[in-house]
Amino acid sequence: MAGFFISFEGIDKSGKSTQAARLVRYLQEAGREVVFTHEPGGTELGQELRHLALNWKPQNSQSGVDPTAEIFLFAADRAQHVAEIIQPALEEGKIVVTDRYVDSTLAYQGYGRGLDLDQLEKIQQIATGGLLPDLTVWVDVDLATSRGRLAPGGADRMESEDDALFESVREGYGHLSLASPNRFLKVDGTRTIDDIFEEIRNGVEARLA
Amino acid sequence: MAGFFISFEGIDKSGKSTQAARLVRYLQEAGREVVFTHEPGGTELGQELRHLALNWKPQNSQSGVDPTAEIFLFAADRAQHVAEIIQPALEEGKIVVTDRYVDSTLAYQGYGRGLDLDQLEKIQQIATGGLLPDLTVWVDVDLATSRGRLAPGGADRMESEDDALFESVREGYGHLSLASPNRFLKVDGTRTIDDIFEEIRNGVEARLA
Repeated sequence: MAGFFISFEGIDKSGKSTQAARLVRYLQEAGREVVFTHEPGGTELGQELRHLALNWKPQNSQSGVDPTAEIFLFAADRAQHVAEIIQPALEEGKIVVTDRYVDSTLAYQGYGRGLDLDQLEKIQQIATGGLLPDLTVWVDVDLATSRGRLAPGGADRMESEDDALFESVREGYGHLSLASPNRFLKVDGTRTIDDIFEEIRNGVEARLA
Repeated sequence: MAGFFISFEGIDKSGKSTQAARLVRYLQEAGREVVFTHEPGGTELGQELRHLALNWKPQNSQSGVDPTAEIFLFAADRAQHVAEIIQPALEEGKIVVTDRYVDSTLAYQGYGRGLDLDQLEKIQQIATGGLLPDLTVWVDVDLATSRGRLAPGGADRMESEDDALFESVREGYGHLSLASPNRFLKVDGTRTIDDIFEEIRNGVEARLA
């Protein structure tokens, strides 16, 4: 059996990680070999890079991480992730489920922060060697739902950005979803965990069949 | 006075760093404001990235740094370097002298390691925002000269690569130099330090005049 590659996407607190973990458990209980991974930080190198990108504070200068440098840190994380984890597992015929992949970069850095989408796409193409998921599950929630699920004091830099950014990111996922309708499965993340999962399970099974 | 941007290039132990430092001293003694910097590791973030790229050893996996990930680490270093050090100094009208810049990536990763030159150039364009040096001093030495200057036991990963790589890198600098003859000043680095410096000083003064 050839491998199958599934990414989960969505804004913070959309419930995508919960759904991804549940799908992995479901597939494993059905006897399938599954690798469950995530970005950023899916490899040891990636953990270092994630730490740098999110928490870097220089000791002797005023400069935080430059936005273009940040893109390259995430691209390095992604290239390492593809080479070390995703590609080998797919070649062994496994199902790979990743919590975030290229669409996160396009949605957050491109649509969200307004960085050049054409440049971002070129970088993703190089970082992944052109490897796209067979299926991308976008767990869509509105901002109010996302905010309602955010634990007080638990926000890191990515989570403390303003509401306008989140709306832009959500719109970005909408554009990406429309541009690749065969790859994307958009699910309404405001329902119960069981209802959301049923839709995802049906979508995955239909594609695996 | 507008800023002026000079890069020094060459294979390891070519003497480029010695010459760059001497040029900086000369320009400063002539009363010019000079920023002397280097890649990789010209910023604090860059030092972290340089360390990762050159010395990374994972604790729980077999995988070293993937070649594509390495390119992105150096691209992040470069983007941070341009944003934090080079661009601000040029905007203040200073002379910036850097020990290595984009041509190192093209020569080492492209011509040396055989990675896709078109992709590398796209990445450099994004990392630098298109900023190229006004003058690139290529201190050219043959492999025997370079090896003769290499201290025993002092080699890091970059310096312990085989001789064929160095010949490819040197040829790469040759191609880059021919492609941008107005930007490149190629000097024969096998002569005395004084003789080499006189040629560099004359070349720099002619362009600054």
